[in-house]
Amino acid sequence: MTDYDYDLFVIGGGSGGVRSARLAASLGKKVAVAEEFRFGGTCVIRGCVPKKLYVYASQFPEHFEDAAGFGWRVGETAFDWPALVAAKEKEITRLEGLYRKGLENAKAEIVESRAVLAGPHEVKILASGKTVTAERIVIATGSSSNANREITGHDLCISSNEAFDLPELPKSILIAGGGYIAVEFANIFHGLGVETTLIYRGPEILSRFDHDMRRGLQEAMEAKGIRFLLSDIIETVERAPQGGLLARTARQIEVTADQVMLALGRSPNTKGLGLEEAGVVLDGRGAIVVDEYSRSNVASIWALGDVTDRVQLTPVAIHEAMCFIDTEYRGKPVKPDHDLIPTAVFSQPEIGTVGLSEEAAARRFPEVEVYRAQFRPMKATLSGRQEKTIMKLVVNAEDRKVVGAHVLGHDAGEMAQLLGIILKAGCTKDDFDRTMALHPSAAEELVTMYSPSYVIRNGERQ
Amino acid sequence: MTDYDYDLFVIGGGSGGVRSARLAASLGKKVAVAEEFRFGGTCVIRGCVPKKLYVYASQFPEHFEDAAGFGWRVGETAFDWPALVAAKEKEITRLEGLYRKGLENAKAEIVESRAVLAGPHEVKILASGKTVTAERIVIATGSSSNANREITGHDLCISSNEAFDLPELPKSILIAGGGYIAVEFANIFHGLGVETTLIYRGPEILSRFDHDMRRGLQEAMEAKGIRFLLSDIIETVERAPQGGLLARTARQIEVTADQVMLALGRSPNTKGLGLEEAGVVLDGRGAIVVDEYSRSNVASIWALGDVTDRVQLTPVAIHEAMCFIDTEYRGKPVKPDHDLIPTAVFSQPEIGTVGLSEEAAARRFPEVEVYRAQFRPMKATLSGRQEKTIMKLVVNAEDRKVVGAHVLGHDAGEMAQLLGIILKAGCTKDDFDRTMALHPSAAEELVTMYSPSYVIRNGERQ
Repeated sequence: MTDYDYDLFVIGGGSGGVRSARLAASLGKKVAVAEEFRFGGTCVIRGCVPKKLYVYASQFPEHFEDAAGFGWRVGETAFDWPALVAAKEKEITRLEGLYRKGLENAKAEIVESRAVLAGPHEVKILASGKTVTAERIVIATGSSSNANREITGHDLCISSNEAFDLPELPKSILIAGGGYIAVEFANIFHGLGVETTLIYRGPEILSRFDHDMRRGLQEAMEAKGIRFLLSDIIETVERAPQGGLLARTARQIEVTADQVMLALGRSPNTKGLGLEEAGVVLDGRGAIVVDEYSRSNVASIWALGDVTDRVQLTPVAIHEAMCFIDTEYRGKPVKPDHDLIPTAVFSQPEIGTVGLSEEAAARRFPEVEVYRAQFRPMKATLSGRQEKTIMKLVVNAEDRKVVGAHVLGHDAGEMAQLLGIILKAGCTKDDFDRTMALHPSAAEELVTMYSPSYVIRNGERQ
Repeated sequence: MTDYDYDLFVIGGGSGGVRSARLAASLGKKVAVAEEFRFGGTCVIRGCVPKKLYVYASQFPEHFEDAAGFGWRVGETAFDWPALVAAKEKEITRLEGLYRKGLENAKAEIVESRAVLAGPHEVKILASGKTVTAERIVIATGSSSNANREITGHDLCISSNEAFDLPELPKSILIAGGGYIAVEFANIFHGLGVETTLIYRGPEILSRFDHDMRRGLQEAMEAKGIRFLLSDIIETVERAPQGGLLARTARQIEVTADQVMLALGRSPNTKGLGLEEAGVVLDGRGAIVVDEYSRSNVASIWALGDVTDRVQLTPVAIHEAMCFIDTEYRGKPVKPDHDLIPTAVFSQPEIGTVGLSEEAAARRFPEVEVYRAQFRPMKATLSGRQEKTIMKLVVNAEDRKVVGAHVLGHDAGEMAQLLGIILKAGCTKDDFDRTMALHPSAAEELVTMYSPSYVIRNGERQ
């Protein structure tokens, strides 16, 4: 036993914090975990989980429409937003309970309070005013939406936090941003019947994604009826005389909408955490600077997840937590591996992706083969829906390794998870070619693209 | 130029026949392909394609029900079976046209007639009575449902062929069989509101599948309301006095149903094909015996697809056709590879599978690790649907290779296609462990099962 009150004190009850607290406690360490709001973190409370539930909700109108082509007549449908919000709330409360239960079962102490650093080994618990000591401290306080104070009237706007719990479904919404949060919410609100406009400073959404994914999704969203204002930004937001809000853009466009949602980036939650007092170094964006083992410049303090601004994804925070536990408590030093992380955008159509975009691969390798298929999914032949699925493999010609895999269409996220294994294992295009097709599926296109659609040599498409 | 009328004569316009005819013609060979019914074969005309369209149709009632948990009220719905049949017919006619067009574009000659062998190099075209000669002949006549003449009243029953085109949707149906065709149709008809009973001679459906898949699906089907008569067979079928049919089983159970569908195996279409005249050897089940290159005992005659009774799957027939073309016309001898074929059962829930079942692996390897997860899919948390997803990896402990992967649940078929690449590439469980999860997805369970659920040593579960 150390001379400290705790072996480990974790600040933040999200994915990274709970996993590290639970595992350390299950190894017999004396652990406390402090959370000022609700256990589960962004992911469970106002991120991945409610988002995906709302995605499901927003897909039903497509099911209702598609049914006609298959011989179904569907009577009038109606949507009850407060019922969805309540159902979501019930489910995340259940999940929050599971997080708590996991901690309790492992005998970690739950501290329902904001906690801040008071030194390299000291944590001040604000609810009680008490300061406790710990041999090791983990900061896992996550991130939150940027406030965007440069926009006049930003305080009239909502972020994704509020979007989940609006008292009523707006008739119209203006969403600012071109990242996955803006894009996902645009699809959700549009699907639920809200007149939706997306405004983004760039010429095309989802920068850094493969261009076929970006263009394919943007075209699909436009075709559905989502309005795009591109290469433009909101400058001011004010209350409109007739009710709702009036936004003015840099290009002098006026948009009236019941709600304006800002999804213009997220910042690490490091303000007022006592980091300066403890001597913890932050980077220019306010993120805690950590080494390859997630350790800050202060030897007794680690940071995990969004607060380090490495990769803001739930499984990454969990992975970092497990590496921290292996390194510090199991005598197996393991560095988190941030290479080849599969991800999805739960838009409609969905994007699933892992590895390099065509553009990034073309910069990195002298010769790149691109295999690309575009087709209408089978269901669309009877539903009549004008959608297209795009599948794409990016191959380093030198060693035949598949260095990027991208899917736009149904189940793209599920596919990306498995493509992640394939790329991580270093599989080649020959491994795809050797595999028998599974018919009828969408994924069979990935194993039946026998000839490159085109080749990029020294950055030039041939 | 040879002295024959054709370089290649293909009998049968299904997947294997069309692919071999089209590829040979595109290589400049003089090719004819004879089809007595419709181009596209079982897959397009009365198999995979219409089946999957009907699966989609049968899923809408679940969408309508699920919607309530997400805040939707859905008015009365009604289903129009003839509308579905007509929509299906339009789509398969379109696909049939694509098959024809592919042949025409490659300049293969289309012969709309039954054609039979008249010798090692001779084919008789029945419509014209003409006999033509060919250097090489491919038999790709497929398979068809067994007639089951041992059942009294078998002529009152339908097979899957008729099931697609019934003039009206039956109120009730009795389906005999425990293979994937019986199981898929049971789910389709149940989903469309038909009172459905499945009768199967074994104690559990889908023999040779992993037991968790078999049991999990059977339980799910029972829970939905599909009735099972197991370890029993139909002995007689007669017209019921009150209309419809009355079936009596070996166990003396009487079942009345509007339709009785027999899905009790399929047999190669080799009768009356002139195979004896040409000296082609058949096996005991009437399948053409071929060597590793799909060549029959007659040097000028090959056979592809179901007629050889190797693996009755569309992609396998296509693969065999491509190997035949490589071997005979491209100077690259390639044997078809029938190992590790991913397959799906498009039941609801769906099964996707590749490699060995737990039972088969336990027989083959001294030590097998089984990783198994069972969970409610996220969508079910709000829909309230009592379904469970099962995911399972079977690992050879000696070399850590994943030798079997099995999924029961949504998108299992899409997952199986990609798991097929993974197993074909010889990936290990460590490749799964190294891969970052994609959250929230179902497939992430496949990469987060860190410890075996159990181990089987020398066939004994530990």
